[in-house]
Amino acid sequence: MRTSHPEKSVSFNSYLEQQRNRIEAQLQRLVPEESEKPAAVHRAMRYSLFAGGKRIRPIFCTEAARLLSQETNPDMESIACSLEMIHTYSLIHDDLPALDNDDYRRGKLTCHKVFGEANAILAGDALLTLAFHVLATLPHTPAEVRAALVAELARAAGTVDGMIGGQVVDLEAPNGPTTPETLEYIHRAKTGALFRAAVLLGAIGERADGKQLEAISRFGANAGLAFQIMDDVLDVESSRESLGKTTGKDLLQKKATYPAFYGVERSKQMAQECVAKASEALEPFGERSGLLKQLAQFLVSRKA
Amino acid sequence: MRTSHPEKSVSFNSYLEQQRNRIEAQLQRLVPEESEKPAAVHRAMRYSLFAGGKRIRPIFCTEAARLLSQETNPDMESIACSLEMIHTYSLIHDDLPALDNDDYRRGKLTCHKVFGEANAILAGDALLTLAFHVLATLPHTPAEVRAALVAELARAAGTVDGMIGGQVVDLEAPNGPTTPETLEYIHRAKTGALFRAAVLLGAIGERADGKQLEAISRFGANAGLAFQIMDDVLDVESSRESLGKTTGKDLLQKKATYPAFYGVERSKQMAQECVAKASEALEPFGERSGLLKQLAQFLVSRKA
Repeated sequence: MRTSHPEKSVSFNSYLEQQRNRIEAQLQRLVPEESEKPAAVHRAMRYSLFAGGKRIRPIFCTEAARLLSQETNPDMESIACSLEMIHTYSLIHDDLPALDNDDYRRGKLTCHKVFGEANAILAGDALLTLAFHVLATLPHTPAEVRAALVAELARAAGTVDGMIGGQVVDLEAPNGPTTPETLEYIHRAKTGALFRAAVLLGAIGERADGKQLEAISRFGANAGLAFQIMDDVLDVESSRESLGKTTGKDLLQKKATYPAFYGVERSKQMAQECVAKASEALEPFGERSGLLKQLAQFLVSRKA
Repeated sequence: MRTSHPEKSVSFNSYLEQQRNRIEAQLQRLVPEESEKPAAVHRAMRYSLFAGGKRIRPIFCTEAARLLSQETNPDMESIACSLEMIHTYSLIHDDLPALDNDDYRRGKLTCHKVFGEANAILAGDALLTLAFHVLATLPHTPAEVRAALVAELARAAGTVDGMIGGQVVDLEAPNGPTTPETLEYIHRAKTGALFRAAVLLGAIGERADGKQLEAISRFGANAGLAFQIMDDVLDVESSRESLGKTTGKDLLQKKATYPAFYGVERSKQMAQECVAKASEALEPFGERSGLLKQLAQFLVSRKA
């Protein structure tokens, strides 16, 4: 039942693809079928959940678990999937006309463009709800751990220093960032918190001790900030074709972004600095942390 | 630390008010202050949470707990508050222009009319998230119970036979109910599921056994259906002044309602039949179930 570490010889890209496939398969099992009533909401949930996401947060989660144990909790893939449900719900709601008003995401029409606003709102609500249901009912995980997972995920998704908090402050600054501090708060809360939760959930699922949790938390927060800074940079650099969403839009809307504040080159440098900090946090784990460090580097090297 | 049963001599109305005040006070403690950043979302959450709700679901919860124990779990009021958070989130999202498009609720402007659609969507998301955080971090409740509470609430709020499911099917039938079976599904899922969860959470919090849970579940489901049928009836009968929301609207929109299907008088009779079934389910608890039965009767006797 317990899953072992992938062969060290496989290349990083095939490793990523292998992990992605495992997450996809588990998501398929966890989300009600389209044929299950009421079909409309399950269709909308699945449309956005299987729209080509990179599954970075789930992969961070399972890899953090492997830091602590070669053979991880058999529920680890379900734990990882809860993060993708939260991430997808946040994308569906952020894309709504009342929020970012995006028609495209990853080259496909956004949820509300295909299923209507009502179904998109409800599909988001449903994914948020399902994430907690999955964690609370994990079959192989002790109740103490299940409750801790729910608590951590809810905190990361919440208003104080969490994802919703970041989104609210972002919306409050429609005319661009006011201070670098606000900008960092937005990115840490809106994106960093869920990356941090991703690795923490992996670690909690393997019953990490306080010191280990602290190191892993620092890793996740910095990797998440690096990811968001690069997201801002890619938004400026990429064309609509290659990134698949309406780009340059952040700048057009004068939203709080790193390039708007520091310029593209300095932003890239800052992202690299975050990756360095993230890697440093993992030093206590020695060689075992190689793949997680590679993942953090991957976040800032990607082209989309 | 443990709370005891209210004096039997106090009248039912003052009992209700006393319970309401305890729930209000606990909600005040559980929801971040408006002064806490980001203020915009906390303001919107509090606006809707403290907009004069009757706190029926929390009271059902604490009263179900008292069926099992005279001195209930010291966390019981927090458990009860999680239900009000879910209920309020569902009202905020249901009122949105893309869903029911309501400007008024309980005589006050709806959340999105005051704070804008974006903040209303996020405030709803935040209340949903907070409900699970509260349950997962209850300080006096064993982890096993906390996980079970999260699982039950997530199920009741979810898509399959849960609140979101009911709302989706309701939206799918914009031209009125198609069959009595669909109508009953909508009401049971949209409203009944959370009433059922209310009493189940109270019972789970007191570690009820399987047989007790089954009886309490039957009570909650039937009381919830009675409540929703009466809600439909009140929508037809009340004037806007007395109910405080745009009324007659269900009929105007030809939404799935009991009066539209069966007429007002037969609907009232059906609500009473549900209350009778609910009361019957509590027979095994004998005299102790008096107050819960009275609460169920209250649901169909109310004028607003």
